[in-house]
Amino acid sequence: MSIEASSTAGGSQAVRIGMIGGGPGAFIGGVHRMALAMDGRCQLVAGALSSDPEKSRQGGQELGLDPSRVYGSWEDMLQQEAALPAEQRIEAVSIVTPNHMHHAPAMAALQAGFHVICDKPLTITSALAEELEQAVKESGKVFALTHNYTGYPMIREARELVRSGGIGKVQKIFVEYLQGWLVDPIEDDGQKQASWRTDPARSGPGGALGDIGTHAFQLAEHVSGERVSRLLGRRQSFVPTRAVDDDTMVLLEFGNGASGSLAASQVCTGQENALSLRIFGTAGGIAWEQEHPNELRIFHKDGAMEWRRPGNAYVGATAAGMTRLPAGHPEGYLEGFANLYRNFADAVRGQQLPEAPFPTVADGVRGVRFIEKVVASAEQESWLAF
Amino acid sequence: MSIEASSTAGGSQAVRIGMIGGGPGAFIGGVHRMALAMDGRCQLVAGALSSDPEKSRQGGQELGLDPSRVYGSWEDMLQQEAALPAEQRIEAVSIVTPNHMHHAPAMAALQAGFHVICDKPLTITSALAEELEQAVKESGKVFALTHNYTGYPMIREARELVRSGGIGKVQKIFVEYLQGWLVDPIEDDGQKQASWRTDPARSGPGGALGDIGTHAFQLAEHVSGERVSRLLGRRQSFVPTRAVDDDTMVLLEFGNGASGSLAASQVCTGQENALSLRIFGTAGGIAWEQEHPNELRIFHKDGAMEWRRPGNAYVGATAAGMTRLPAGHPEGYLEGFANLYRNFADAVRGQQLPEAPFPTVADGVRGVRFIEKVVASAEQESWLAF
Amino acid sequence: MSIEASSTAGGSQAVRIGMIGGGPGAFIGGVHRMALAMDGRCQLVAGALSSDPEKSRQGGQELGLDPSRVYGSWEDMLQQEAALPAEQRIEAVSIVTPNHMHHAPAMAALQAGFHVICDKPLTITSALAEELEQAVKESGKVFALTHNYTGYPMIREARELVRSGGIGKVQKIFVEYLQGWLVDPIEDDGQKQASWRTDPARSGPGGALGDIGTHAFQLAEHVSGERVSRLLGRRQSFVPTRAVDDDTMVLLEFGNGASGSLAASQVCTGQENALSLRIFGTAGGIAWEQEHPNELRIFHKDGAMEWRRPGNAYVGATAAGMTRLPAGHPEGYLEGFANLYRNFADAVRGQQLPEAPFPTVADGVRGVRFIEKVVASAEQESWLAF
Amino acid sequence: MSIEASSTAGGSQAVRIGMIGGGPGAFIGGVHRMALAMDGRCQLVAGALSSDPEKSRQGGQELGLDPSRVYGSWEDMLQQEAALPAEQRIEAVSIVTPNHMHHAPAMAALQAGFHVICDKPLTITSALAEELEQAVKESGKVFALTHNYTGYPMIREARELVRSGGIGKVQKIFVEYLQGWLVDPIEDDGQKQASWRTDPARSGPGGALGDIGTHAFQLAEHVSGERVSRLLGRRQSFVPTRAVDDDTMVLLEFGNGASGSLAASQVCTGQENALSLRIFGTAGGIAWEQEHPNELRIFHKDGAMEWRRPGNAYVGATAAGMTRLPAGHPEGYLEGFANLYRNFADAVRGQQLPEAPFPTVADGVRGVRFIEKVVASAEQESWLAF
Repeated sequence: MSIEASSTAGGSQAVRIGMIGGGPGAFIGGVHRMALAMDGRCQLVAGALSSDPEKSRQGGQELGLDPSRVYGSWEDMLQQEAALPAEQRIEAVSIVTPNHMHHAPAMAALQAGFHVICDKPLTITSALAEELEQAVKESGKVFALTHNYTGYPMIREARELVRSGGIGKVQKIFVEYLQGWLVDPIEDDGQKQASWRTDPARSGPGGALGDIGTHAFQLAEHVSGERVSRLLGRRQSFVPTRAVDDDTMVLLEFGNGASGSLAASQVCTGQENALSLRIFGTAGGIAWEQEHPNELRIFHKDGAMEWRRPGNAYVGATAAGMTRLPAGHPEGYLEGFANLYRNFADAVRGQQLPEAPFPTVADGVRGVRFIEKVVASAEQESWLAF
Repeated sequence: MSIEASSTAGGSQAVRIGMIGGGPGAFIGGVHRMALAMDGRCQLVAGALSSDPEKSRQGGQELGLDPSRVYGSWEDMLQQEAALPAEQRIEAVSIVTPNHMHHAPAMAALQAGFHVICDKPLTITSALAEELEQAVKESGKVFALTHNYTGYPMIREARELVRSGGIGKVQKIFVEYLQGWLVDPIEDDGQKQASWRTDPARSGPGGALGDIGTHAFQLAEHVSGERVSRLLGRRQSFVPTRAVDDDTMVLLEFGNGASGSLAASQVCTGQENALSLRIFGTAGGIAWEQEHPNELRIFHKDGAMEWRRPGNAYVGATAAGMTRLPAGHPEGYLEGFANLYRNFADAVRGQQLPEAPFPTVADGVRGVRFIEKVVASAEQESWLAF
Repeated sequence: MSIEASSTAGGSQAVRIGMIGGGPGAFIGGVHRMALAMDGRCQLVAGALSSDPEKSRQGGQELGLDPSRVYGSWEDMLQQEAALPAEQRIEAVSIVTPNHMHHAPAMAALQAGFHVICDKPLTITSALAEELEQAVKESGKVFALTHNYTGYPMIREARELVRSGGIGKVQKIFVEYLQGWLVDPIEDDGQKQASWRTDPARSGPGGALGDIGTHAFQLAEHVSGERVSRLLGRRQSFVPTRAVDDDTMVLLEFGNGASGSLAASQVCTGQENALSLRIFGTAGGIAWEQEHPNELRIFHKDGAMEWRRPGNAYVGATAAGMTRLPAGHPEGYLEGFANLYRNFADAVRGQQLPEAPFPTVADGVRGVRFIEKVVASAEQESWLAF
Repeated sequence: MSIEASSTAGGSQAVRIGMIGGGPGAFIGGVHRMALAMDGRCQLVAGALSSDPEKSRQGGQELGLDPSRVYGSWEDMLQQEAALPAEQRIEAVSIVTPNHMHHAPAMAALQAGFHVICDKPLTITSALAEELEQAVKESGKVFALTHNYTGYPMIREARELVRSGGIGKVQKIFVEYLQGWLVDPIEDDGQKQASWRTDPARSGPGGALGDIGTHAFQLAEHVSGERVSRLLGRRQSFVPTRAVDDDTMVLLEFGNGASGSLAASQVCTGQENALSLRIFGTAGGIAWEQEHPNELRIFHKDGAMEWRRPGNAYVGATAAGMTRLPAGHPEGYLEGFANLYRNFADAVRGQQLPEAPFPTVADGVRGVRFIEKVVASAEQESWLAF
């Protein structure tokens, strides 16, 4: 066991970031801010925190931002920041708006020459996603998508193990993401998080499917290295007045012959943020649960279960590089999220990166296609190629 | 916490049992014998332990049975035992043969006036199952099916909680039964347990589906009180030479509007006997895992998770009646199994029984129909009413 | 993973046992009866179940014993059984009385030529214990002491690992046995289990110390192979009217230079039967908890934690020999207890035994000396050699 | 379940901090920096990061500090910062040096008018600690001691529950802090963390006792509200060449009649950072483990165990105020640490504070006295009043 906290660079070298969205009442904006600040490699210097200029101004004040760099709209921010001297202006935007508001500012930011780190799902249609993917390619800019669960060290450990053949040929993949907070129609009471997530105009066609199902889908492919090739979905709204699914189940087939299932539900009462992944191969298996992120169980066909934890010498290099503390000092959700920002900043700075440092626009395109395919399959009640 | 072991009656009052199957090399026969002996309410006095008379004789000797009551065939046993004086002859048969050998001896035993306790699945076709159900009705005899997992106290606790509205309206049901022991084609090496389970002539059309999937299905309905009304199945043989599925997944709809999924797999490497059940309702949820059978997690919409364990004063009467030891003294698989034998013996003796004392022939019929429906759905790749 | 239940011999070869104590209202008598019956290698055929002849008769009837072999006193049983033909009479006695009633019947039984299996602690003074040890030696009979926790397979696995150097040189030993059932003075309400356990005339000088502390002490030495050489104890009665300790803590030094601690408490509210053992050496460590007996955690200085479970091919021979079921089919307290009876029966029959098949009279002597030494140390508030 | 991340103020209002110690190779310095940055309420603006001016300079550069505010000694920093305009100069120092280097800079900082946040244990003698306590009183400045484990929300939840009588009268307190990283003499190889911790000149008289035992001691009193009144200690160096204990055990008596034990060891191979606390009262109990900090188990005499987790509506106000994320989004060691910095900053700013917002110099004095008392007790092998 090492007992040194990994040193963190920062300060004057920090990547200057402008945030789009994340004003008062938002959830994920605050997360992004804590994540970007953690290692000192990014610095929040500007923001268009709300589509309501007054709220943006108020949010900026709460955050202690320079008032001259708190903007009433993201269009203003992009335009005026671009006009600042190069050593002052933002270098990247962080987009933390509801799903329908990812595409436009991302396109504009790329065109204005800024790097982009964007929340998921990428967009609300695959056509928009593909357009954005094309724009990223043409821009040459860094684009990261915050499927933050890939930032957990033990997910990286699992990925390396599985992809290097450590559990043999992958045969079964079970992924679940269960929450309970939408079991009642709290959107009717104006709960802000619930409101946009259950409004197809802002969330896109998927409810639970888009909000958490895409995380599950991305994680399953990320860790296993296998790609879904065929699927059958079923969607349901347990709250009758809800316009999107609050529960989705999908049977999965993978290109290599593996099969599995995905469940994404927001009506599983008492479940908090129960994302879990299990993969079984011909020689072993792995199991991981987001609520205990520092534990990776590894099954062996001919031996006892192994229980790996970060910060130990036996952990692989990629996971080790995403760990700040010695073994037994739990890191959590924010640290995992911060690992994406750290890698994003290093990418912007052209520094050396670990393998697959963060999810990309291609993950985003695939995620939106997954939503659409599950929606279609559920409507048709039939297996569809993917 | 009470600290008294529940006293057990037995001895001369014990129900006299003849076993069919369970000779040398069998797994479940030994389990039945330990289970029936545990509380002294049943006594093994005769056996037709193998279709090979020599093996039956040898098995009887190992068990210390009276050689005159070890028979070369179950037909002989039924005939000769029926000829013994009433106070000597067996009162019931315990059928622990492979699946295809349940129907004939069960029919004959009922017709000969014996009670029957039989392993699952009931038969290999629903036509045979229905015929047997009819025979049970006409006979007036006790018939118990050893879906043994219903014998765990915490399963009973969950059942009472859920059925009495303790988690509100049931919305989601997830049941899984994962093993890994068939990931390799061990049937090719003559492993006895694997051989008959992967031979459709002996196991019926379902492999993992019949062997463990029926347990999962029965448990889900037993605890939730809801009935599957529609399903979509997918079956796979990961071992290419295997004639039955070693992996089955099913999406489920229930009559009350709930939905869920069932997974039954014997190729999940490193999984031992991982049967788990989770049910979520509008007000709470429950979670239970067979490998830690003495723990029932209960989720509440507005409160902290509760963790119930047997032997405590707060546990309901049915669960308490299935518990032998004070809290903290773990009971396991055999004790759960023995609870079915205890209730079976009490039923034979006409004593007072708890609610739903053991699974019945009706559970058996439903289980076989479930196998057939999943097979059909998987072939047609479509949802089917059930 | 094997999937065969271990076959069990029994029937006519079973060791015939007469029980002393264990009448209506007793706890441990029922446990012994279920344990001895489990594998068919012992058979309860006689009993002096209470010092009250009427209660003994009633108990015998409930158990279905032959009324002619239910005795009004253990003296009668020993005398009259000895007069029966050799092939009928009991071969061994099972002593399940309160602690003060172990010595006399054990002495008499040995002298009458019977084998003995006796509950713990052995006696209420070390002088009596030593006298009994001498009697065992002279008799040549089998004597087993039911420190039942040594019957758990994972305890045997830990023992083999630690004693064979698998964790290096042993340095730290922590053992705890925490219960909460005596937090209130339930003995004042006549609760039978509490009454004798808190009465020094029947329990001996140790309360929690004798009742559960001796289990903890014996387990620590059994698994580690190290012997306590010096100790400092502290005893307390949290219930002011209680005549014995309901809480004891002991600091321990071992002959090899290791150190550790023992806690035995019956006032830890909400703790059920929380016996746990942790041992750390120069190269690794082990941790085990009685309430999850099928899991042995093994720590490695240079590798991930291992999690061993019974029924798997990687488990050592001794543990495997104490396992009846395939992996994932939990065995519990009764099965562990039954392992002692199985080994006891095999010893009586002169069959081959595993290493250290059951705790012996020597363990019993050591346990009583431990009680006395802790009592003395607590009184003197000083370290004492042991 | 709320699903909003708590908004964090910061920016221009942030408390300006100068760090003493924490240069290249340090562990706890990096932790302090991440913790202070997390909520934007503190900002690192200056540093005397090493007693070696060149290393200080290099460390400052890595951190992106203004070179003019990176000092070659803490004396320089205090002097020169004091000379800066009030709105620029540091407001507080964060002292993260080895134990023997806490007292002098803390005294000087207070005298120079700076607030202080300091690592633990406070000093290496109680005389120095008392002097410092006096200086704090006279200065009127804020002084926080980073017993960081008090920053975990579930520790605060436990504290409120226990102190408000939720488990009845406290009777038993078990606290443990087990690590394994010093099982080998890694200090001989120059491992920096090991070197100073095993050098009495820098660590003080306690090895494991001072480094982690004081955390355990402070946590036990903090949560229980009871004060140790008498103790018996035992110290050992398993590594023979080591000048301080690497293993300490203490029996504890508390002023209210409770008793308990404390174990602090750094030779428990395979243990990472296993700090755990269990408290039992007449009506219930609590259990908490640092490696799973988001779970608080609560035992009830007459009901099932409860399992509380942060972010839920049922959690008390203090714990809620120390939680940034919705339920199920794990926060860890850094977030707990950051809670102390957040409260420290609020105290500096004169804002409203939760009850017991951070450990104080009084905790520090008590901790150093505890070290000295355990050392004395271990030497004398006797109980000592405390």
